[in-house]
Amino acid sequence: MFAGAQVSLYPMTDGFVDVILSSLKALDAWRDRLRIETDDISTLIVGPPEVLFPALRDLYAQAAATGAHVVLRATLSRGCPGEPNDPICQTGALANPKEPLASRQQAALRAIQACPSKGQAADAQFSLYVMGAGDHMDEIMGCIDFLKRSGTFDRSKNFCTRLTGDAGPVFATLQQAFCQFGPPTGHVTVDLTVSANSPSKR
Amino acid sequence: MFAGAQVSLYPMTDGFVDVILSSLKALDAWRDRLRIETDDISTLIVGPPEVLFPALRDLYAQAAATGAHVVLRATLSRGCPGEPNDPICQTGALANPKEPLASRQQAALRAIQACPSKGQAADAQFSLYVMGAGDHMDEIMGCIDFLKRSGTFDRSKNFCTRLTGDAGPVFATLQQAFCQFGPPTGHVTVDLTVSANSPSKR
Repeated sequence: MFAGAQVSLYPMTDGFVDVILSSLKALDAWRDRLRIETDDISTLIVGPPEVLFPALRDLYAQAAATGAHVVLRATLSRGCPGEPNDPICQTGALANPKEPLASRQQAALRAIQACPSKGQAADAQFSLYVMGAGDHMDEIMGCIDFLKRSGTFDRSKNFCTRLTGDAGPVFATLQQAFCQFGPPTGHVTVDLTVSANSPSKR
Repeated sequence: MFAGAQVSLYPMTDGFVDVILSSLKALDAWRDRLRIETDDISTLIVGPPEVLFPALRDLYAQAAATGAHVVLRATLSRGCPGEPNDPICQTGALANPKEPLASRQQAALRAIQACPSKGQAADAQFSLYVMGAGDHMDEIMGCIDFLKRSGTFDRSKNFCTRLTGDAGPVFATLQQAFCQFGPPTGHVTVDLTVSANSPSKR
């Protein structure tokens, strides 16, 4: 299995380089379980979902704490048939394929309830894609039903769903959506945007 | 059919609001063929691919011309089974499903050759997702083969492909990738990032 994300931080300030570099320190606590490579468009972070999502949460929270209007953008993927197996991605976080949708939804809701607050607000918008299966819409509809009961659901929009709340439960919700829906051997991706301190919300 | 995008502009400058508002004027020439709605995270643009991609190109070029480091981000979708048919999305741009991959690739290459320059450089990174079909990797591999011959191909990365060049052929390449691969009645999405004036490239 191969899992990871292409991640970018967009601070809407003249001091954007400083915000990015100081926020990257939040990844230090996770670096021994991730592989990280950067170019001028994005940073590749390879690792299992149970490390990837908390690492993204901490990166986001550190950037949001600067007070700047900042957006974290990520293209997440697991199980892409074009990528090699990588031992660093070994995970126990993916749902059992024999488990019915309803019990996967319950497990996802319990994980959010167990999740501590992070002390930073997060407005997220994301799309979940389940590929190579005839019933991909069943998995997506099952995921949307879970999201509506997650406590972080804001609203549905065309092509995506909005979440809002503390960064802790918001990123936990995203992790559950990524791990509990779509087969564990399938190809699942998420297109994610998380916004902090937008002047349009004030 | 329903097609469109959730689009955001991220100018990395204290004057980000001015850059966004002045760049949106580039959409005026296209507004009669699009439906546009904005919130604090993104702008929904609904319309056919042959209008949507030139409109995004013009929006990007106007923002890039400010000289600021600016990123355009878009989640594009066509044929999502969860969206209603919309007359504004009527399109003649999608490939004939009976046409073999090789001749769709040729048509895509001809469209790029016919495309005028825009006078702004564009560094793009994108992922194409083809859903609900058992052979989705065949379509994606066929698309990647076209991209390598497009004249805008930069390199493959994990989870995505980089394009570089003038904004004219770069957005034309993206439009062809979106329209010529995956069935016309299928659900196809693109996760797109286009970067201008990055200090990391200087």
